[in-house]
Amino acid sequence: MLYEINEKALKLESEGKKIIRLNLGDPDLETPPEIVEAAYTAMKAGKTKYSSSYGEKKLREKIAEIHGVKTDNVVITPGSKWGVFATMYLMMQGGGNVIIPTPYWTAYGLIAKTIGAEVKLLRTELENDWKVDPTELEALIDQNTKMIILNNPNNPTSKVMDDETLDAVVEVANRKGVTILSDEVYSAIAFTKTKSILEYDGDCNHILSNGFSKTFTMTGWRVGYIIAEKLLVDKITKLNQITINNVPVFIQDAALKGLELREQIATAIKNEYKARADMASQTLATAGFSFSKPDAPFYVFPKRAGLNSEKFTLDLLDKGVAIAPGSSFGDYREHFRISLTAPRDQIETALQTICEAV
Amino acid sequence: MLYEINEKALKLESEGKKIIRLNLGDPDLETPPEIVEAAYTAMKAGKTKYSSSYGEKKLREKIAEIHGVKTDNVVITPGSKWGVFATMYLMMQGGGNVIIPTPYWTAYGLIAKTIGAEVKLLRTELENDWKVDPTELEALIDQNTKMIILNNPNNPTSKVMDDETLDAVVEVANRKGVTILSDEVYSAIAFTKTKSILEYDGDCNHILSNGFSKTFTMTGWRVGYIIAEKLLVDKITKLNQITINNVPVFIQDAALKGLELREQIATAIKNEYKARADMASQTLATAGFSFSKPDAPFYVFPKRAGLNSEKFTLDLLDKGVAIAPGSSFGDYREHFRISLTAPRDQIETALQTICEAV
Repeated sequence: MLYEINEKALKLESEGKKIIRLNLGDPDLETPPEIVEAAYTAMKAGKTKYSSSYGEKKLREKIAEIHGVKTDNVVITPGSKWGVFATMYLMMQGGGNVIIPTPYWTAYGLIAKTIGAEVKLLRTELENDWKVDPTELEALIDQNTKMIILNNPNNPTSKVMDDETLDAVVEVANRKGVTILSDEVYSAIAFTKTKSILEYDGDCNHILSNGFSKTFTMTGWRVGYIIAEKLLVDKITKLNQITINNVPVFIQDAALKGLELREQIATAIKNEYKARADMASQTLATAGFSFSKPDAPFYVFPKRAGLNSEKFTLDLLDKGVAIAPGSSFGDYREHFRISLTAPRDQIETALQTICEAV
Repeated sequence: MLYEINEKALKLESEGKKIIRLNLGDPDLETPPEIVEAAYTAMKAGKTKYSSSYGEKKLREKIAEIHGVKTDNVVITPGSKWGVFATMYLMMQGGGNVIIPTPYWTAYGLIAKTIGAEVKLLRTELENDWKVDPTELEALIDQNTKMIILNNPNNPTSKVMDDETLDAVVEVANRKGVTILSDEVYSAIAFTKTKSILEYDGDCNHILSNGFSKTFTMTGWRVGYIIAEKLLVDKITKLNQITINNVPVFIQDAALKGLELREQIATAIKNEYKARADMASQTLATAGFSFSKPDAPFYVFPKRAGLNSEKFTLDLLDKGVAIAPGSSFGDYREHFRISLTAPRDQIETALQTICEAV
């Protein structure tokens, strides 16, 4: 229903109606000008040719340095979604199943469906602070389980997994010999420290998916990366060679500039979204919604007992506010997702409309 | 062996050796500055957000206008290779075979292999002016044939199919109910008029693959398009949604600028490559090589009876010239491909080295 809401929002806007767009994870902020200038400089320097399907060496080296891995373990992808697709496509050829905790970013499920993999959903609940139960996880694993996908911090809950839970999940995966693909695209701007999958040893060759979209407000630039064992990096590179070939070098130069300025850029983004999250949390709590306070940008995922969130979302759209129903992230009919991706005054207005409408 | 040669050339260069690089289809010319400026303007205007997986409406409209089709029949892809991959992936799920005339761009074969499709090669010969024999084509088609791939103008021969041959090929395809995927990425800068697959009617829903790399010297920008029936365009868009999401909007703005200036840009490129092709043809003919005179940029594909082109290519690399052996394009051991993608004086030097070495 995520696409349906977005299409309807666009249609209403094209009819002249004003819509506050809190339905997507696309920040209202601009890409920092230093990043734009780095791209322009690279273009003018002729960095517009075919290039390595691994990605540029300098960018891979910088990423390797930040994550404490070898350059050989890094491959650049046109967005983190491509990284997730390529990894699943290559690891799940010949079938098998993938375990995904819910609520979840539905792209994981759509990718699995497209490549013919079975999805096993593992429910988590607000009432249990969105914790994955390691015993339930273990019970879901069978001999055809090829992968567990974690999204940490999580979209739509903005919850960071606590160390104890993540330790237990990794222990189960290692013992059962199942690879974890950890999508940590929100981690560099999380409000609390997020433990990375790369901090664990073991023979299961866990995989990190990451991107520049969220940390550097570069959603439309399409650049991300996978960190994995060299064998998988080489396979993704071979897939790149027959599909996208390479991420434009001037975009990789722009991404590198982002990494060089990451303290300053990430801090500014974190501060802005923390302020928005605090404001939203206060208003929603006062109005009696249940939710876990965001540990990261960009989302709040409130609940109201008895709510039909699909109807609620559609009604709200007629009142000029676009959000996403909980059903877009699994079986969460009483929840809805607010993206705090608009200027604060617009978020404030939207929150009032939401509180009045419920 | 194409990649091996390129890696070895890069290695020799890193050791300080000077190599004239005529082994890839990556032009030495720069992307026209108007195109670079259009990208920069778009970036500064904030066109850096998530966008439609169909591509930008304005770009699709312009492409539709140029090719005389509807906007609904156009989908933008990150390079024409992605278009070929997506089309083959979607049309050949569940197996089947694809017929490809040789010599051919090996990416087609690698894509087929990756997605688990069978490849049936249809040999053409210099001695028969590289013509596809419609009778041989018909004999290759069976009930599992899902696609014929044409590359017109052809890489590596730079041959444009004559109308009579193309008419006959399309007639066979239509009668047998097989879809043609026509990769026409060199057609806008061909020295002779190239008849497009879009000029044919029929129920087989033939498909055009095209890109901006060659016409506008935008190889590293990764932007191309597929023109097809709406059903396939919608399917490619759905695949885009779960993989690359969208081509950056600022890159699409740059591509649109290219199309607006296409007369001027294509003419300049055509003239430059025509001059290079004439020069190469004269030198190679004098030295007694057999070849068909290029109808299009960027390649010449000469033959010398008894030549072992893999050995010849490797020896030549030690003499400072990188070309591609005929075996990289099918069973063409006596041929080699020269890419005329270097300044004229370098091409001249390289041709002398080639003629002396043989």
